[in-house]
Amino acid sequence: MDNLLDVIKSRRSIRSYQDKDVPDDMLNLVLEAVQWSPSWANTQCWEVVVVKEAAVKQKLQETMGKGNPATKAIVTAPIVLTLCGKLKGSGYYNGQVTTKFGDWFLFDLGIATQSLCLMAHSLGLGTVIVGLFDQDKAKDVLQVPEGYEVAVMIPLGYAAKEGSPPKRREIGEFSHKDKF
Amino acid sequence: MDNLLDVIKSRRSIRSYQDKDVPDDMLNLVLEAVQWSPSWANTQCWEVVVVKEAAVKQKLQETMGKGNPATKAIVTAPIVLTLCGKLKGSGYYNGQVTTKFGDWFLFDLGIATQSLCLMAHSLGLGTVIVGLFDQDKAKDVLQVPEGYEVAVMIPLGYAAKEGSPPKRREIGEFSHKDKF
Repeated sequence: MDNLLDVIKSRRSIRSYQDKDVPDDMLNLVLEAVQWSPSWANTQCWEVVVVKEAAVKQKLQETMGKGNPATKAIVTAPIVLTLCGKLKGSGYYNGQVTTKFGDWFLFDLGIATQSLCLMAHSLGLGTVIVGLFDQDKAKDVLQVPEGYEVAVMIPLGYAAKEGSPPKRREIGEFSHKDKF
Repeated sequence: MDNLLDVIKSRRSIRSYQDKDVPDDMLNLVLEAVQWSPSWANTQCWEVVVVKEAAVKQKLQETMGKGNPATKAIVTAPIVLTLCGKLKGSGYYNGQVTTKFGDWFLFDLGIATQSLCLMAHSLGLGTVIVGLFDQDKAKDVLQVPEGYEVAVMIPLGYAAKEGSPPKRREIGEFSHKDKF
């Protein structure tokens, strides 16, 4: 890799995967990227269920509504990484919520997700972040214990088809000087 | 940069900054990293207030409790990037919440935050993610309109002192096969 910005700008959401396994050492590098992500007071609330079994992927697919453009990817990608968060850690201090936003697990999982997706892309692997599904049903499928939530499912594999980048807001549209 | 994993692993939370300006072209690259982050259905809910004025940084510092280890960084770093999110976009479809987690702006801002911090680090700049402050007071300081929230403040500048990495959970501790 030459340049981080190139990696960030050339990452795409991949919804079509080759029937080709991901080597274990690559999977490990992707998980290492999660491991070294920053988090609220280093709480590291992430848990990752690495799904390879076809029957489990099938059940995860059933938690998605029809029309989700990533529905097929959940069963065709060789791996689905499901990111779970431990509750009442991130955003808390001594068991008490510290900000108006309550639990910060979604923020920390967002950080970890970007580490994961960029790392995968730098290894030549595709991902797509899937947040639109029935998280409670997915909890049952993955036997996630109380005190944790499933947030996103991320198919991981070799892209069969690259996408084109969606339009972006200009920097001048979303940045402000000293006040909003 | 040789390797993305090196960038991810060598990033530290920087709480001590040199009295040295950040060139505009570097700031722009950092904002470009935000621009190219993925988001829920490409909603790109982020807004970034780039704070350079000392008086504004001073007022932002007053929104933090005593004892926050980043309190000094807010006024000594040449720039404080405050990340705001537009509500009722991310996680919504046709104005309706789509998952049990309601608004996903914190997740998307987490993604953008990691892009920002990694990009800064790859340019030789330090950052620290500050979430523990009175977000409503910061909204007033920055004149953030209704419908938006301030989530985090991120000092940006040249590190005066590097930190050591906090301990990480092992991959085997947070990863699971096919079920939690």
